[in-house]
Amino acid sequence: MPHVEITWVEGRSPEQKRKIAERVTAVLIEDGKAKRENIHVCFHDVPAANYAEAGVLVADQKRAP
Amino acid sequence: MPHVEITWVEGRSPEQKRKIAERVTAVLIEDGKAKRENIHVCFHDVPAANYAEAGVLVADQKRAP
Amino acid sequence: MPHVEITWVEGRSPEQKRKIAERVTAVLIEDGKAKRENIHVCFHDVPAANYAEAGVLVADQKRAP
Amino acid sequence: MPHVEITWVEGRSPEQKRKIAERVTAVLIEDGKAKRENIHVCFHDVPAANYAEAGVLVADQKRAP
Amino acid sequence: MPHVEITWVEGRSPEQKRKIAERVTAVLIEDGKAKRENIHVCFHDVPAANYAEAGVLVADQKRAP
Amino acid sequence: MPHVEITWVEGRSPEQKRKIAERVTAVLIEDGKAKRENIHVCFHDVPAANYAEAGVLVADQKRAP
Repeated sequence: MPHVEITWVEGRSPEQKRKIAERVTAVLIEDGKAKRENIHVCFHDVPAANYAEAGVLVADQKRAP
Repeated sequence: MPHVEITWVEGRSPEQKRKIAERVTAVLIEDGKAKRENIHVCFHDVPAANYAEAGVLVADQKRAP
Repeated sequence: MPHVEITWVEGRSPEQKRKIAERVTAVLIEDGKAKRENIHVCFHDVPAANYAEAGVLVADQKRAP
Repeated sequence: MPHVEITWVEGRSPEQKRKIAERVTAVLIEDGKAKRENIHVCFHDVPAANYAEAGVLVADQKRAP
Repeated sequence: MPHVEITWVEGRSPEQKRKIAERVTAVLIEDGKAKRENIHVCFHDVPAANYAEAGVLVADQKRAP
Repeated sequence: MPHVEITWVEGRSPEQKRKIAERVTAVLIEDGKAKRENIHVCFHDVPAANYAEAGVLVADQKRAP
């Protein structure tokens, strides 16, 4: 703890996740005074048809995820 | 916000998710006084072997998900 | 299953939650073909200082939750 | 309710999930005084590149998940 | 990882949570082949008016949580 | 989307949450190529008796959360 869950539309690379996990962990150490060994970061990738914003599926929107 | 997460056994179609996302968003606007642009709805599809009710995996039950 | 989690800023009444739970359950029966007895709806109320949109805490925004 | 979500790196078998769901359900009945028919257990399997501990992706660690 | 989240109606004691956390951790070590130091168990206590089963708030049901 | 949930033991200040929300949002824009207006960050504060690491409640450990 802290435990971080990031839910987004699939499509990001392992390299993006590697950098985001490192940087989010650093933020929680610096500003949240958490201990590195206790911090978990988990990414939930979901299809564009599984995420809606303002009632509209991302799959139905004309935009990058 | 509000953020809605719906976790269920996989098998529903994009069309079902489209309708459910629209209707759940409408409910939150009408009865929750939330603003449309702030509402997120996310579906987590899991295999039938990943969900248990009353201690029994859905995969081991004789029923539609 | 389905299991529904609704996370939002605190402030809605039990009556609002009662109506939203009923209506969301009906949507999942009608459009998700789920069985009533398997549907759970859970509300997570969080303080306005615990939710950020576009990087800004709701507590720091000039608006109703 | 209770609703249990177990998030881990993918790789466990249906048989492991079957046993864990049964045993976790039994623990909640015995020590949590919950009713069997209300208990849900859900497993979220994520790729090793989607889970970081202490800022390092499991995929980048030299270990079994 | 694994990370376990247990969401239920408030009312269980710290002693119940202590026992459940220990036993669930043991189950994940024995049947999930997870390492003790990586296992997190988190309890989300919610009011009876925040949890609905089959469309009915627990607060409106005539039963122990 | 992305939606970020950070679960930790209660005790951090609104100022800590303000900074963490800003910095995590910036990380997701820079490294996740997400749009600012779609990013939500939510903090779940739980009591020390509600979070266990390696089977031991934080409340029973001799350490800062």
